[in-house]
Amino acid sequence: MIAQRKEYSRRAGAARKQLAALKVDGLIVVNVENVRYLTGFTGHDSWVLVLPRSATLITDSRYTEQAKGECVNCRIVQRKGGLAKEAEKIISKLKGIATLGVEDSCSVALLKGVRKALSAKVKPVGGIVEAVRIVKTETEIKLIRKASKIAFDAMDWALMQLKVGMTERQLAALYEYKLSDFGAKIGFETIAAFGANGSRNHHEPSSRKLKKVDTILLDFGANYKGYTSDTTRCFAVGKVTPVFRKVYETVARSQRNAIAAVKAGVKACEIDAAARAVIKQTDLPVFGHGTGHGLGLEVHEAPGVSGADKKTVLKAGYVVTVEPGIYLPGKMGIRLEDDVLVTEQGAKVLSRDKRFDIRADRVPLLKA
Amino acid sequence: MIAQRKEYSRRAGAARKQLAALKVDGLIVVNVENVRYLTGFTGHDSWVLVLPRSATLITDSRYTEQAKGECVNCRIVQRKGGLAKEAEKIISKLKGIATLGVEDSCSVALLKGVRKALSAKVKPVGGIVEAVRIVKTETEIKLIRKASKIAFDAMDWALMQLKVGMTERQLAALYEYKLSDFGAKIGFETIAAFGANGSRNHHEPSSRKLKKVDTILLDFGANYKGYTSDTTRCFAVGKVTPVFRKVYETVARSQRNAIAAVKAGVKACEIDAAARAVIKQTDLPVFGHGTGHGLGLEVHEAPGVSGADKKTVLKAGYVVTVEPGIYLPGKMGIRLEDDVLVTEQGAKVLSRDKRFDIRADRVPLLKA
Repeated sequence: MIAQRKEYSRRAGAARKQLAALKVDGLIVVNVENVRYLTGFTGHDSWVLVLPRSATLITDSRYTEQAKGECVNCRIVQRKGGLAKEAEKIISKLKGIATLGVEDSCSVALLKGVRKALSAKVKPVGGIVEAVRIVKTETEIKLIRKASKIAFDAMDWALMQLKVGMTERQLAALYEYKLSDFGAKIGFETIAAFGANGSRNHHEPSSRKLKKVDTILLDFGANYKGYTSDTTRCFAVGKVTPVFRKVYETVARSQRNAIAAVKAGVKACEIDAAARAVIKQTDLPVFGHGTGHGLGLEVHEAPGVSGADKKTVLKAGYVVTVEPGIYLPGKMGIRLEDDVLVTEQGAKVLSRDKRFDIRADRVPLLKA
Repeated sequence: MIAQRKEYSRRAGAARKQLAALKVDGLIVVNVENVRYLTGFTGHDSWVLVLPRSATLITDSRYTEQAKGECVNCRIVQRKGGLAKEAEKIISKLKGIATLGVEDSCSVALLKGVRKALSAKVKPVGGIVEAVRIVKTETEIKLIRKASKIAFDAMDWALMQLKVGMTERQLAALYEYKLSDFGAKIGFETIAAFGANGSRNHHEPSSRKLKKVDTILLDFGANYKGYTSDTTRCFAVGKVTPVFRKVYETVARSQRNAIAAVKAGVKACEIDAAARAVIKQTDLPVFGHGTGHGLGLEVHEAPGVSGADKKTVLKAGYVVTVEPGIYLPGKMGIRLEDDVLVTEQGAKVLSRDKRFDIRADRVPLLKA
């Protein structure tokens, strides 16, 4: 409890430190993940008011009991009127709050309402809590690891039910069923793609049935206590064809090369280049999407890992996906994705699991 | 196909008609449901530019093929740079576009980017497409009905597996599994609450196990081709206790009274009052939430059905939930919810199903 209190204090403090440079005397936090990050509160429709000497969760009667149980380091106010009105009540009692920042991820309509309700000047500001969130703590890293473990357990169970004739939808649904049973949620919409569907990056599980000789691409994640994992695995079913072997081994080498390049101080675009370099040496097509993205409370958060961004430098504590792929439209697609922690020494893979090992020399074959 | 073309034309036309009064010469539509409503496009990260003589979907290479298949009545542009830059390219070729509206549900950061990229004046405006969406067409009503039918089929299947010792999470997961198998998605996070958990309006399915004599509250919905159903059913397990019977019958009467009040021309707050009036005649506590909400492409959309809003008048073609409840904290909660279409003659219930009949004289009893 004391450790928790300290951690939430640190987070609010780190957000507070940025306020002076932005010329605001406090911050209204409206983004649901940022609210959770600063207070531990898991409900919705609530704001955090970060002021020089306090942090206050403004919520409503549906959530007050829950907030009391979840929030160890902030005041809790049950609003009667609107959220902005309640914020005005709080700041009108204080001196020195001339300008208040509001997260610029809020809607234009919401900003208008806040401006109307507040006597202080209101200024949209961006990325304050996100700049704190980007470096993960030990606890957060454990939760991502645990989310990944649950995802693998659930997928392992689903794959044990695999049968010729099963649809993509059924496989995805079995995975999600087990995930719920384990007390987790999906981290994002599960992709289960058989055969040629694997080359469609945004494929929705369909009624396509598994054949005796087939291929499977699974992009799956769990959300456990707010934290998300995001992994992709590919399998040959019945038989490993030469083309599957070649593509799989190339993607596995590409991923290994990219992960080997991960280290604090390295530019994100260098990771992207390391992934592509391996594929460029072959006659196979290089993937069109980025090599990875940050993850944590959201499945896509800072930093991005792409070639276009020449600025971002990886720091210790960042967690990013590394997910190169090779797509042969109309034939097949293979992507391999893991979640890695950036450290001073290099990458630490948070999402490895013996049952779903990626080795370029051992192409995974399933029987159905 | 021709009927579809006409319908999408009508929708864009109905949005266009509102532009003059707002003093804008066109509208950038960014809300994902509004984009879908105006074009049929089911992807993400795309905008619709509604201009006096054209409607253009601006998308990217991931979605171009999909858009060509889905959109029958708009131009499709594959962007190279950002969305706003592509919009500027289009309007810079036209005359008379001095001011462009942008939906005010967009983020403050996004509006800033649009203002930077566009040579035209940019003005945030709200509720334009929503004002068209609020009246449902025959096709939309059929899809809500179908979503509801799938939800009942899936829940019926899940309840057939009911066993003493099953957890709330398992029951919810079984329902969601079958939903996926039927080709639908969840409309929102399923609530499965046993016993006293039924009084917690935002209860998340937990590891609470079903007892031999117990009660169940299920708030469940399906999303089918974009359209959502939202229904709540309650059951006694093993035995109907006198208090369960009393509360159930009261809620059933409350719901029936509210539904009987639904008719084009009636104020939404009158429906709310009709639901509460029945409960006020008893010694049971009146529910704290609203009596209902609109639904369609979103599970919560206009109009709200609550006592606080004295203005909203129901019109033919609105679809709203009617969901009174009685909550006895620490003991149990009962809510009964259906989706009803407003017509000139009265309410048409879209979510009835023989297997899940609500009758005050027949309290539903399950064996586990």
